[in-house]
Amino acid sequence: MEHATFEPVPDRARAKPGTVYLIGAGPGDPDLLTVRARYLIETADVILHDALVRETLVECLPKSATVLDVGKRVDHKTPQEQINRLMAAHADDGDAVVRLKGGDPFVFGRGGEEAQYLATQDIHFEIVPGISSATAAPGIAGIPLTHREVSSRFTVITGHETPEKEESTLEWDALARHVDGGGTLVILMGVRTLDRNVRALRENSLDGDTPVAVIQKASWEAQHVVRATLDSVVDRVEESEIGSPATVVIGDVIGVYDDIDGSLREFEPA
Amino acid sequence: MEHATFEPVPDRARAKPGTVYLIGAGPGDPDLLTVRARYLIETADVILHDALVRETLVECLPKSATVLDVGKRVDHKTPQEQINRLMAAHADDGDAVVRLKGGDPFVFGRGGEEAQYLATQDIHFEIVPGISSATAAPGIAGIPLTHREVSSRFTVITGHETPEKEESTLEWDALARHVDGGGTLVILMGVRTLDRNVRALRENSLDGDTPVAVIQKASWEAQHVVRATLDSVVDRVEESEIGSPATVVIGDVIGVYDDIDGSLREFEPA
Repeated sequence: MEHATFEPVPDRARAKPGTVYLIGAGPGDPDLLTVRARYLIETADVILHDALVRETLVECLPKSATVLDVGKRVDHKTPQEQINRLMAAHADDGDAVVRLKGGDPFVFGRGGEEAQYLATQDIHFEIVPGISSATAAPGIAGIPLTHREVSSRFTVITGHETPEKEESTLEWDALARHVDGGGTLVILMGVRTLDRNVRALRENSLDGDTPVAVIQKASWEAQHVVRATLDSVVDRVEESEIGSPATVVIGDVIGVYDDIDGSLREFEPA
Repeated sequence: MEHATFEPVPDRARAKPGTVYLIGAGPGDPDLLTVRARYLIETADVILHDALVRETLVECLPKSATVLDVGKRVDHKTPQEQINRLMAAHADDGDAVVRLKGGDPFVFGRGGEEAQYLATQDIHFEIVPGISSATAAPGIAGIPLTHREVSSRFTVITGHETPEKEESTLEWDALARHVDGGGTLVILMGVRTLDRNVRALRENSLDGDTPVAVIQKASWEAQHVVRATLDSVVDRVEESEIGSPATVVIGDVIGVYDDIDGSLREFEPA
């Protein structure tokens, strides 16, 4: 893969021994890492990355570091406890440790849990924000989350969650009213549970004509956008064979996409 | 300012003639630009930046480009129409134009409006997402927006908005219930209107003990966090002499910050 080197890394930005950096890798493309993330990655001793970090990005991690894939191992997820222990053990040994997470570590990234564990072990850490797919996926697809006289607020949830039934009912009621009142709703990892979520919004009186967009793998090679309505989106996604990870956007802002689509240059993945 | 050069910029990532790049600059620190943003900035002919782009970042823009400050001019804001015309005129002349916005162009950044204008003029543009302060400011301050068994959703609004009274009442009712039900509320640019917004939440029955954090100038030299409750935050902010821009976070996730604060390394601005 063609990519420029970022040396020399300034002293202030070098990963420090005995410290863990909880870094957001962004939506997938190596060019959507922050400059700070790149500096830290290039000066780390150990890099632990999860399954959401795209292969192209993993391939360009420096050979000087020990790279551990803690997302998947022989088809099962690495237990969180094991990830915690690995981070702590390497930092205890004096390594500069990068914990690389897809998106942002603090937006459905379990960064808070890892930080809490490290704090109990008296290990220093830093949070390095990344671009969450909540904003990146709609952005790359040409869908603003807010737009004057259309939407002045947005709410982000994850489709992966399986809340208790009672709590879930309350939440969908509020979410339906949020969209109905002009808010934008973003559902991360929302494909597997799309049918259930659409039904929940419809049952809470959200209009079947409400615009929906599903953005598959924003900034990845296979990025793809499906435009639909609340009533048609499940069928449209099935026809399009959209897979995970995908971001679902619901609300009137999707109309802006129709205005600008013709002049929008598509993001070219690295 | 000490910062590494990023040459050579790969061909695929060079700013192209006649194209406008609507780029998110992130919360302020030059290191929190994306790699892609840096590539485009370094190969642009013209850069139009707004007032939210931090001085340190403006100082390290390449001398090869024409840099236009369209945020403020002699104490008044550049009219949006003028910004639109400038972007279009330069692109029409065959320039590679970077439009650099604080945060993310599609999160209260008017990126949608600028894209719509460019589309009417048949000018090609690309959206380059940046890290919104909505995630960056809490992240740098050690406050996760979501956290297992604490919060599984967040809503982002802007404090700058002055909605009509009737609509505003409805919204605050829903927002109070959102926080009461375990959601996180983020208010961007929320200092000037803090008093009014806190009152609206209290009038809609949100508990006065609800935790609040105000993060001033995340990733800037003067970054500063104030911890309070809904009932105490207005006084605490006044005592702390916190100024704009600041991000307000409301919800139980702020408890995580108390757990981890002792081991969190503060972000060192460039």
